[in-house]
Amino acid sequence: MSDTQLYPQINPPHRLLMGPGPINADPRVLRAMSSQLIGQYDPVMTGYMNEVMALYRGVFRTQNQWTMLVDGTSRAGIEAVLVSAIRPGDKVLVPVFGRFGHLLCEIARRCHAEVHTIEVPWGEVFTPDQIEDAIRQVKPRLLLTVQGDTSTTMLQPLEELGAICRRHGVLFYTDATASLGGNPMQADAWGLDAVSAGLQKCLGGPSGSSPVTLSPEMASVISKRRCIEQGIRSASHEDGDDEMIWSNYFDLGMIMDYWGPERLNHHTEATSMLFAARECARIMLEEGMDNIITRHALHGRAMVAGIQGMGLSVFGDIANKMNNVMGVVIPENVHGEAVRKTLLEDFHIEIGTSFGPLQGKIWRIGTMGYNARKDCVLQTLAALEAVLNRYGFRTTQGAAMQAAWDIYDAEARP
Amino acid sequence: MSDTQLYPQINPPHRLLMGPGPINADPRVLRAMSSQLIGQYDPVMTGYMNEVMALYRGVFRTQNQWTMLVDGTSRAGIEAVLVSAIRPGDKVLVPVFGRFGHLLCEIARRCHAEVHTIEVPWGEVFTPDQIEDAIRQVKPRLLLTVQGDTSTTMLQPLEELGAICRRHGVLFYTDATASLGGNPMQADAWGLDAVSAGLQKCLGGPSGSSPVTLSPEMASVISKRRCIEQGIRSASHEDGDDEMIWSNYFDLGMIMDYWGPERLNHHTEATSMLFAARECARIMLEEGMDNIITRHALHGRAMVAGIQGMGLSVFGDIANKMNNVMGVVIPENVHGEAVRKTLLEDFHIEIGTSFGPLQGKIWRIGTMGYNARKDCVLQTLAALEAVLNRYGFRTTQGAAMQAAWDIYDAEARP
Repeated sequence: MSDTQLYPQINPPHRLLMGPGPINADPRVLRAMSSQLIGQYDPVMTGYMNEVMALYRGVFRTQNQWTMLVDGTSRAGIEAVLVSAIRPGDKVLVPVFGRFGHLLCEIARRCHAEVHTIEVPWGEVFTPDQIEDAIRQVKPRLLLTVQGDTSTTMLQPLEELGAICRRHGVLFYTDATASLGGNPMQADAWGLDAVSAGLQKCLGGPSGSSPVTLSPEMASVISKRRCIEQGIRSASHEDGDDEMIWSNYFDLGMIMDYWGPERLNHHTEATSMLFAARECARIMLEEGMDNIITRHALHGRAMVAGIQGMGLSVFGDIANKMNNVMGVVIPENVHGEAVRKTLLEDFHIEIGTSFGPLQGKIWRIGTMGYNARKDCVLQTLAALEAVLNRYGFRTTQGAAMQAAWDIYDAEARP
Repeated sequence: MSDTQLYPQINPPHRLLMGPGPINADPRVLRAMSSQLIGQYDPVMTGYMNEVMALYRGVFRTQNQWTMLVDGTSRAGIEAVLVSAIRPGDKVLVPVFGRFGHLLCEIARRCHAEVHTIEVPWGEVFTPDQIEDAIRQVKPRLLLTVQGDTSTTMLQPLEELGAICRRHGVLFYTDATASLGGNPMQADAWGLDAVSAGLQKCLGGPSGSSPVTLSPEMASVISKRRCIEQGIRSASHEDGDDEMIWSNYFDLGMIMDYWGPERLNHHTEATSMLFAARECARIMLEEGMDNIITRHALHGRAMVAGIQGMGLSVFGDIANKMNNVMGVVIPENVHGEAVRKTLLEDFHIEIGTSFGPLQGKIWRIGTMGYNARKDCVLQTLAALEAVLNRYGFRTTQGAAMQAAWDIYDAEARP
């Protein structure tokens, strides 16, 4: 017999996950996932699917009928939108302000798009004028944006981009994986044609399910590429008249047929992940979307104040920082990875490292979802200061904690 | 405030899922999934990933290094293998004996393959000679097979196909979603270059994670198409010299880089689904792969005997039936959907309907994974007979149950 039989049951150590995500799941989400399965066409299951659609309309702030889950991690949602919307040869414009802008380019290239980019240095975002100028020049079919790029912690303002896209006949998509729930999102008011997200950031769930919403115009563009599988098609089914979508799993037309009234079989919905996604949205709407965003802003502010109180610098344009994550410039003579390792090993607190041009230069600290809480902020600040002191970095005793407490006390005052 | 706030917490009714899958998850798998999350590069997490690789080598019976999970449902695993292995224009041969053969064609077409098929009537399988003849004629780069097609309940013998493929220089893939765990699988001994599966059939877990294994030859073919994302590439990274893979999410080269020693960031591993997949494999190896297959054969035989004892006919070539699912010919003058509805509503037992040419003609009854148990078989037989009797179908009192008990009694005798 193989020695793999000797592996014990799963028993992960307790961790306080204060990086850029994933973070700790809300225990209510974990409990929802431990529910027993039901059949995929059980009326209770299709009822839950309809509820998920309604719940995520509330989260995305949209009336879009086609608001549903893609069964995969957040980049599955991105690829589903892109491969369903982009026909080979279509021009797309991607404003790149961090790693996840590069990811949109990378995925769009694999959809055989003609990819055009504009870039700002990591730590900045674009003005609407910069984007409109590029749209005038490139004349893309789609504008692909990242709302919050965790690689730089920046939040791209989207409010004015929908009107620009409409003026130029451009479809408008944003990847809200890292930002949704922690920062404002108004899919309809901002004129978004597609938004995708994930559960593992501000939504307080595990990675593995990607909520997406599609405007009626985007749905209509996708429906023109409709295909029905041979194994399940009947005489009444007609394909669309535009080029087919070059993926089966990510064919949002098929996914719409599965989530819609016809319930045409596609994949077998990932039931436990759907239970998780439903619970994430349910507890968010119970708290209220405005309240959640306010909570993320408060704890994000307290973390920034504490870090600054420790004598550390915050990375990037703080006016355009996401509420839920910050970059901390690693001080000179401090070994960034040694600090992360001691935090993890001795305190069981995880903070994030960085990619690309910021590798080794900043830590990324998140305050999001279930961990956007005062106790998480204060524990992290106290532990980080202790570790920094141990590695020889001097701080003013009590200053960091007082700075954070000041934020909380100001909030508590009427 | 929206009325979606009024949705209660998840509370699915108890169901006994005796269809073609998904079936009830093993409670140990559900408990594993309710474990709290850890960071994706936490040494405990990467340790679990390595354990998952080792465990699924045991399940697939392979020494393949590249044995890992694709984060999506079983068709995500299929598409990952196909889009990573098939270059546009490559010829593939698909022996179609049910709906899931059509699905392989459908996915291969979306990979821009030149798709060739051979077909047998639903309810039959292919001889090795039929497949070798077609390979001689078509000269495909890949042979794409389904091992067990739940649409017809048939199991395609694969033992001799690997040698045929080697003789003709063909890469050999099988979709083992419905068959793995309930029927023999010898990935190495049978010369398979790629196998993909899902958790929701004989593995006793929820849909949403797809275990795959790749032979060294398949891994080398895929590595020739290697790409590194711009956002994370460094000077030491070289791309392959063959055409890139036209999907980012399903790029198995990138997924290998993420599961391999370099741990290059790709998606954020779906932690809870990985916990589920690990527990599925762990408890299977604890029982022993041979014992599990024997268990599926026993309960499958008992179900068949009971159904025949009720005076009903079994669909298709019973010699090539999967152990874990059977087709029951719906008797004349019985409304198939009314029976299913009463079983579900009054007994909370789900059995399956059918697709395509078999729609309305057979029910599909599964005995798989956690539900490959005597109590599940006997409860289902007793309930089905009661419902059939209520709808006017005559049976010999006690005969069905006795036939099933006879199977169990014969097994219990030394």
